[in-house]
This record gives sequence, C-alpha cells and structure tokens, in this order.
Amino acid sequence: MQRHGLLIILSSPSGAGKSTLARRLRAWDPHIGFSVSATTRSPREGEEHGREYYFYDREAFEDMVEKGELLEHAEVFGNYYGSPVAPVKKAIEEGHDFLFDVDWQGGQQIRDSVLGKYVLSIFILPPSISELERRLVSRQQDSLEVIENRMKASRDEISHWPEYDYVLINDDLNETEAHLKTIISAERMRISQHPHLVDVVRDLNREFEERE
Amino acid sequence: MQRHGLLIILSSPSGAGKSTLARRLRAWDPHIGFSVSATTRSPREGEEHGREYYFYDREAFEDMVEKGELLEHAEVFGNYYGSPVAPVKKAIEEGHDFLFDVDWQGGQQIRDSVLGKYVLSIFILPPSISELERRLVSRQQDSLEVIENRMKASRDEISHWPEYDYVLINDDLNETEAHLKTIISAERMRISQHPHLVDVVRDLNREFEERE
Repeated sequence: MQRHGLLIILSSPSGAGKSTLARRLRAWDPHIGFSVSATTRSPREGEEHGREYYFYDREAFEDMVEKGELLEHAEVFGNYYGSPVAPVKKAIEEGHDFLFDVDWQGGQQIRDSVLGKYVLSIFILPPSISELERRLVSRQQDSLEVIENRMKASRDEISHWPEYDYVLINDDLNETEAHLKTIISAERMRISQHPHLVDVVRDLNREFEERE
Repeated sequence: MQRHGLLIILSSPSGAGKSTLARRLRAWDPHIGFSVSATTRSPREGEEHGREYYFYDREAFEDMVEKGELLEHAEVFGNYYGSPVAPVKKAIEEGHDFLFDVDWQGGQQIRDSVLGKYVLSIFILPPSISELERRLVSRQQDSLEVIENRMKASRDEISHWPEYDYVLINDDLNETEAHLKTIISAERMRISQHPHLVDVVRDLNREFEERE
C-alpha cells in the first residue's frame, strides 16, 4: 500500500548550506522530486521548456496566479518565478516527496495552499553571522555589494524561523544532513502520509465481525 | 543548550506488542522516564509509595482530579489510577522524555492537559485480528472469558487510531522498534522541543547589529 508524498520546504538565509543539503538529500533518495519552476524570464541557450523551467509570458503567468495554479510565486528583478501545482499534486499523490528550496514567503504560500497539509518545513540556521558572511565571501560568486544585500535579506529571512516545523543549526554539514534524513524518514510515517490506514482498519473490523 | 522533553503516548489494543516495545525503548534510552501512577488500590506486599505507585484514599484522589493535578485518570475495577502532573512537568522541563503506556482515553486526557503541546502520540496496530488473538492466547495469562473481553475492548481501542500522530502496524517487532526510534529521534528535533532557539536567534541578531 502506498503512502502519500511529503512536500518538504527547506528555507535558510543564503550561505547557510541549503543548496548543498538539498543536493545531498537528492543523492540519498533520487525519488525526491525537485519542482520545475514557471518563469517569465527568457530562456537561456540550451534551456528547455519543462526541463529547466516552464517559460510563459507575463499575461499567461498572471493568469496562472489568478487561477490558483501556482503553489507559490514571487517577482525577482522584474521576472516572475513560481511552482505549478499540477505536477507536484500528481507526484505526491503517487507517493513521491517533493523538495522546495524557497524563502519564507514561498514557504508561507505553500503552507497556505491546497497541498498545505502535506508540508514538512525545515529552517536551516547558520552557526553564526560571521560564519555566514565567511561562506558568502569564500564562494567568490558575488560582489561585496551583493553580499551586503544578501546579509540584509538574511536577517529578514532568519526572523521567520518560528514558522517552521524544525529548525536546525548547520554547524557540521554531515550532522545536519543526518538530522534531515532522520526527520524526513520519520515524517514519512506520520498519519497524514498514510491514507490507506482507513483500508487497513476496515479490514481489521471485517475480521472482528467475522469472529462474532 | 537544553531541549524540552517529549511526552510520548503509546497506545494499542492489548496483544499488539506495546509493552515489549515500551521496554525496548527504555533499554535504548534509559533516560526516558515512565510515569509512576497514583492509585486508590491498596499497596501489595513490597510496594512502596512513590516507587510502584503513589497510594491515596479516594477522597485525596478525587481532590487531585478536581485541582487538575493529574494528567489523566481512569477508574478500573473500582479503583482509580492516574498520572500526577508535577513530576512529569518537572522532568520534561529538564529535558527528559516521558513514556505513557495508556489507552485512547488516557491519550485524549493527556493531549487536552496543560502539557498537551509536548505530546507525541503513536498508535500500534496488530497485523491482523487473528494474530492479535493468537498473541493473547499464547501468553497463557488470561482465561478465555478475559480474552474475549480484551478482544471487544480492542475493537473500541482501534477505532481511535485517527487521533494519533503516527500509526505503526506491528508486523515485525524489530522493524517497529526501529521505526519508533526514528520517530522519537526526529520529534526531539521539532521546534516545540527547543525553546532555547529564541536565545540562538537573539545572539544572531546581536551579531547583525554589531556589523552595522
């Protein structure tokens, strides 16, 4: 009998290790799906509709928002990004988990969506702000100004920790990875993931009746 | 920094393996406390007040009920049994988990108590009713009449499965034990168990302020 899939929300300020942890979870269980986002930005070379992104124009995107066809969406640097409900709904009904690497606003929208009751939300905290800054600087990916903006956004992001089911302090990556696996393994057993229990108990009751 | 303790409720029809599982959990983690019950029945030889039971007369017991000093209580064969709040509250505030081996009524009372938000509730189902009966008969502990009464009570007990956080089908004892350990390990990380996160985030915010 099949369980229901989880909708795993992983949020953190940038630099806390979220992307690495998401990658490791996927290596641990390749059945965990990652949502393909819808976007209004133009496709880059080699990007395919339905693989990297679903590409839409603004009108089509806004239409999807209005019809409630997105689990969450946000506007970033003038482009819309969002997660279509339909593929996620189908996958979790078939027993696959889905991982969403979103900020607190995305998390809030998913929690408030029609699939909200399947959400498992985990927030990753950095061990310290100096460590967070060190990680952002050491990836040599962003200018100092961008880093400064990320640090400001981090403070806002962190303030939303109480909205999550679990909060992990990512001091040691391997330890945090192990904790995430334990949490996901347990939450997969939660009663809400097992709609077939209704049938299990119906069968037990039938057995009781046959005894009488 | 210290976590808060869990109030673990384990319920099942008799014969589903609950007592064995509770014993194994205690062997796994001897820090998991078991509640010493209050009762109005007379002490048997060798029983000590505060060790096997807290012994009270009916008036004192009813007074405790009225004052809300019991997490749950029930009358069984003319005697009261109940779990005093105070020692459990003290222990979970000090970071120890507590295991309650109670029926659905006890579970419901504990969930509705002042300590309800620390509850983790798990229901153990037998793989089949014939297996449940086989286990009751094979322990050679009860008369056929008592077994018949237990079977009737089992049906009622099982009907309350939807009230629990997790429902496990105890087909294989070792597997169920492993599942219980995973669930408890994960739930210990849940945000409600970590009141000190407030201080962690306060420290992070102080670091942000020092940067500015």
